[in-house]
Amino acid sequence: NSSGYGDHLEAVRLFADLGIRIVQVAYNTANSVACGCYETKDGGLTDFGRELIAEMNAVGVLVDLSHVGWKSTQDVVSWSKKPVAITHCAPAGLKNHPRNKTDEQLKLVADAGGFIGVTMFPAFLARGPKSGVEDYVEAIEYVINLIGEEQVGVGTDSTQGHDAEFFRWITHDKGCGRKLVDFGDVLELRDFERLGKFPNLTAAMEKRGWAARRIERVLGQNWISLLRQVWPA
Amino acid sequence: NSSGYGDHLEAVRLFADLGIRIVQVAYNTANSVACGCYETKDGGLTDFGRELIAEMNAVGVLVDLSHVGWKSTQDVVSWSKKPVAITHCAPAGLKNHPRNKTDEQLKLVADAGGFIGVTMFPAFLARGPKSGVEDYVEAIEYVINLIGEEQVGVGTDSTQGHDAEFFRWITHDKGCGRKLVDFGDVLELRDFERLGKFPNLTAAMEKRGWAARRIERVLGQNWISLLRQVWPA
Repeated sequence: NSSGYGDHLEAVRLFADLGIRIVQVAYNTANSVACGCYETKDGGLTDFGRELIAEMNAVGVLVDLSHVGWKSTQDVVSWSKKPVAITHCAPAGLKNHPRNKTDEQLKLVADAGGFIGVTMFPAFLARGPKSGVEDYVEAIEYVINLIGEEQVGVGTDSTQGHDAEFFRWITHDKGCGRKLVDFGDVLELRDFERLGKFPNLTAAMEKRGWAARRIERVLGQNWISLLRQVWPA
Repeated sequence: NSSGYGDHLEAVRLFADLGIRIVQVAYNTANSVACGCYETKDGGLTDFGRELIAEMNAVGVLVDLSHVGWKSTQDVVSWSKKPVAITHCAPAGLKNHPRNKTDEQLKLVADAGGFIGVTMFPAFLARGPKSGVEDYVEAIEYVINLIGEEQVGVGTDSTQGHDAEFFRWITHDKGCGRKLVDFGDVLELRDFERLGKFPNLTAAMEKRGWAARRIERVLGQNWISLLRQVWPA
């Protein structure tokens, strides 16, 4: 969340030097830069936000729109001089949810040279808590059918090892404000309960008939291509 | 500036206990709560902003709209359950400036039971750097003619003892961003170069023919009435 930069444009370079090279413009609600996807009224990218995006472009920090609202997303895509990403989202075409992205939103980012990371968070997938790796592969394929297979990757949004307090925090505005969403019992994706289960994902891709080229791209090559464009050499 | 609260609603009470009992909703530009008067597009009060204003009302912190934009001002006036204030502003009816307030804006706040503190910052007065105490009294009288003499007070905005770096900071977005305004050479109000010169102000009020009752109200009684309504006993 760019609110971590506070009121300091110079913090972009400092944090980048410390390793923070992917930052969301806003997280769920409003900050001084833009608005999140649960904000009642999205006022769009602010004047300060424009300067912050320019600095992120200049320093080489990937601009992430995952939890950002629609008006702010449009403003950022128009304004950013480097490709942007929705690093972790699921398609609203399969499950309607404020955190999921419509075909129009996914296409806007992709048409601007951007990247879509597909999340495996079960609440955002079509079958909800019953979802397994095969549902996740279906969601990735939905996005591929929309924007092609060269700008899509894995964006797990894994919450492995987090406790109830963590989920209380992320489901409230800035942790202390109004409740934004109720995920119910948060379950891991079936057959992908831990990050060590990546081989199950590969197997599900093969089972769905994906060519090796597509699997390699989605599992990593597309991410590398994106980061080569955005991060400094 | 409410951005000092960061993302912490609980900071309102903490800071109030430490003596911070007048806080601007926004300062010149956008923050996570609202937008300032130099922001290109004022998105209004955010969802978090509503919760913050409610907390300020509950704790007893005066909501200040001096550097706040028009849309945000309207939203805050509608939302706040306690009287709000523009603690330091001059009337746009005498000098057109983004920081000055139109008759409509002054009336909106007053009609809601709020308060107007009139600033003596020369750049905001009709005769600019040539202004003296008599111009300041004229500005106060303009506001009195608009909203009566019971909701108006002195809001010096004195910058006595500040250096060039201070003025560089306050004329740029969050100190580090774009330049917002150029005040030229900042001069003190003639005959009110220091806070010790209050007697000159009283004399100028008398010279203009103000009754003792009006002078007492403007010099302090109205402020006391306001703070009695807003601050806890």
